[in-house]
Amino acid sequence: MPNLVMLENPMPGRLEALRRDLGPNWTIIATSPQADRAQLTAALAAADVVIGFEIDRSLPPMPRLKLLHITGAGYDQVDQSLLPPGCTFCNVYEHEIGIAEYVLAGMLEWMVGLRAMDRQIRRGDWLGSFYKPAFHGELSGKTLGIVGFGHIGREVARRARAFDMRIGAITRTPGPSELLDWAAPMAELDARLPECDFLLLCCPLDAATRGLVDRRRLALMKRSAVLINVARGEVADEDALYEALRDKVIAGAILDVWYVYPSRTDREPLPAHRPFHELGNVIMSPHASGCTDMLLDRRWMVITENLKRFAAGQELRNVVLRK
Amino acid sequence: MPNLVMLENPMPGRLEALRRDLGPNWTIIATSPQADRAQLTAALAAADVVIGFEIDRSLPPMPRLKLLHITGAGYDQVDQSLLPPGCTFCNVYEHEIGIAEYVLAGMLEWMVGLRAMDRQIRRGDWLGSFYKPAFHGELSGKTLGIVGFGHIGREVARRARAFDMRIGAITRTPGPSELLDWAAPMAELDARLPECDFLLLCCPLDAATRGLVDRRRLALMKRSAVLINVARGEVADEDALYEALRDKVIAGAILDVWYVYPSRTDREPLPAHRPFHELGNVIMSPHASGCTDMLLDRRWMVITENLKRFAAGQELRNVVLRK
Repeated sequence: MPNLVMLENPMPGRLEALRRDLGPNWTIIATSPQADRAQLTAALAAADVVIGFEIDRSLPPMPRLKLLHITGAGYDQVDQSLLPPGCTFCNVYEHEIGIAEYVLAGMLEWMVGLRAMDRQIRRGDWLGSFYKPAFHGELSGKTLGIVGFGHIGREVARRARAFDMRIGAITRTPGPSELLDWAAPMAELDARLPECDFLLLCCPLDAATRGLVDRRRLALMKRSAVLINVARGEVADEDALYEALRDKVIAGAILDVWYVYPSRTDREPLPAHRPFHELGNVIMSPHASGCTDMLLDRRWMVITENLKRFAAGQELRNVVLRK
Repeated sequence: MPNLVMLENPMPGRLEALRRDLGPNWTIIATSPQADRAQLTAALAAADVVIGFEIDRSLPPMPRLKLLHITGAGYDQVDQSLLPPGCTFCNVYEHEIGIAEYVLAGMLEWMVGLRAMDRQIRRGDWLGSFYKPAFHGELSGKTLGIVGFGHIGREVARRARAFDMRIGAITRTPGPSELLDWAAPMAELDARLPECDFLLLCCPLDAATRGLVDRRRLALMKRSAVLINVARGEVADEDALYEALRDKVIAGAILDVWYVYPSRTDREPLPAHRPFHELGNVIMSPHASGCTDMLLDRRWMVITENLKRFAAGQELRNVVLRK
């Protein structure tokens, strides 16, 4: 009879589906970090399994916890020191399809410029055609450097390859891949930067990657280069990136991850301390690259399967850590 | 000593490059259909080779013509009855890379909606993220029907396959292809329409394809379907398409080819008789999908090579017709 505590407020219908899928042997309590403190403390004291996203010192203790399952991939918001001995910590992916499509959408928009063409032809301006010649670029033949070659990097590489791009990966564990023209260790990042037309950040945020793209490295990139960040904002230093874009040290950026996020006190903040929103050479999105209509179904299918495996004492998928 | 008449005004430097590449054995006269009539008549009377784009009855006779080489792929503007016996007619492709990238850019923009996200997050609106949930679609798993499976269709299919789309071709010459899930003859178009999420028109314009997409066929498509036209405007009936988009008979369109083009009297016309420019569910571009910075180099490389083959009496590439 595992006790499951849901710390995250799931989409409508999801909790009912989970109760149905897991059956009557599970006790499921839906609460939240903002719930009544005594209730939250009691629930977590008895929890065998917690499903959540932000796991930090503001939460009451979870002394019996055997499985922490987060509902996303990135775990920079999880304080792993809070997990008791014997606890397993799992994450979930399934966002790599959406994010890979977003990355290709961004690179293609950068090269083709549909947005500007659409605006112009709606007023009878044929700029970009043979009637008013201006030539846009091709993705074909361009070099894509991928920093962090995990689930997302692989799905991006597979699609980019069909466009005849040259593709390299900068990764902690470089190895040959049929998707890649080259793979290099992190120590070779500086040497590889000058050849990249697009630099994609899709690595975890940790001590080694925080501020990885700084002023010095931005200056090593091509002036025509475009930085794409779908990792975490802080992988690129905010001031350095803003100033490099403003001053055309690099040509542009495609940014889905940010430096300021909505909070209880400000639900509609601008996404950075610096005015990225004033820049014309940035394609901006609200940490939405993976938010597709198929994502949650795929994620909850994996999470539910993992919960069943946990109950049956079987091997779990997507294990981040075993304590 | 072939006489070559250039009827098209090429980009700066191109004529000089051609003179250099072909060498002193060729006589090259650059003129245009709008040139002094006596001069044009004399040039064409002596022409062994003509390079042009619009070849119609307004031109003086070309009795000695042995090779007509157009500088594009579509030849609906060439009156082939004007070519004398013994004349060979060639076209040139090389736009399929740019057009395939455009088609994928359009489909991805349709699914991801970068344009709207960018506009919203610049004012602090996080719609589309987990902070303000709204889910965009995935290209993965969608069905793409390709009408006309030539150079463009193949390059689109190769890229779309990397996105795990289901891909079919409707073509006059259906045959198996590793790029396709199915291939069907034109007679099966109606039966295939209801399964397509995207319908791509990339066939030639001729008597069989003019008005191919009419009111009846638009009504056979999914209400969520998107029509993509990179062929010629007239392959889709203008009134029927406009009304289907306005009335949401289909969800949207990505249109690069049109019903009205710039002319000497109106250099900045709206691209249709009907107000497509007022529709929010259309991505519009000014017949620019293939206009990339690499296109002309590739095309003139092929044309120059063909002219050398012609002079050497060798087999020509891209022969449309031998009279």
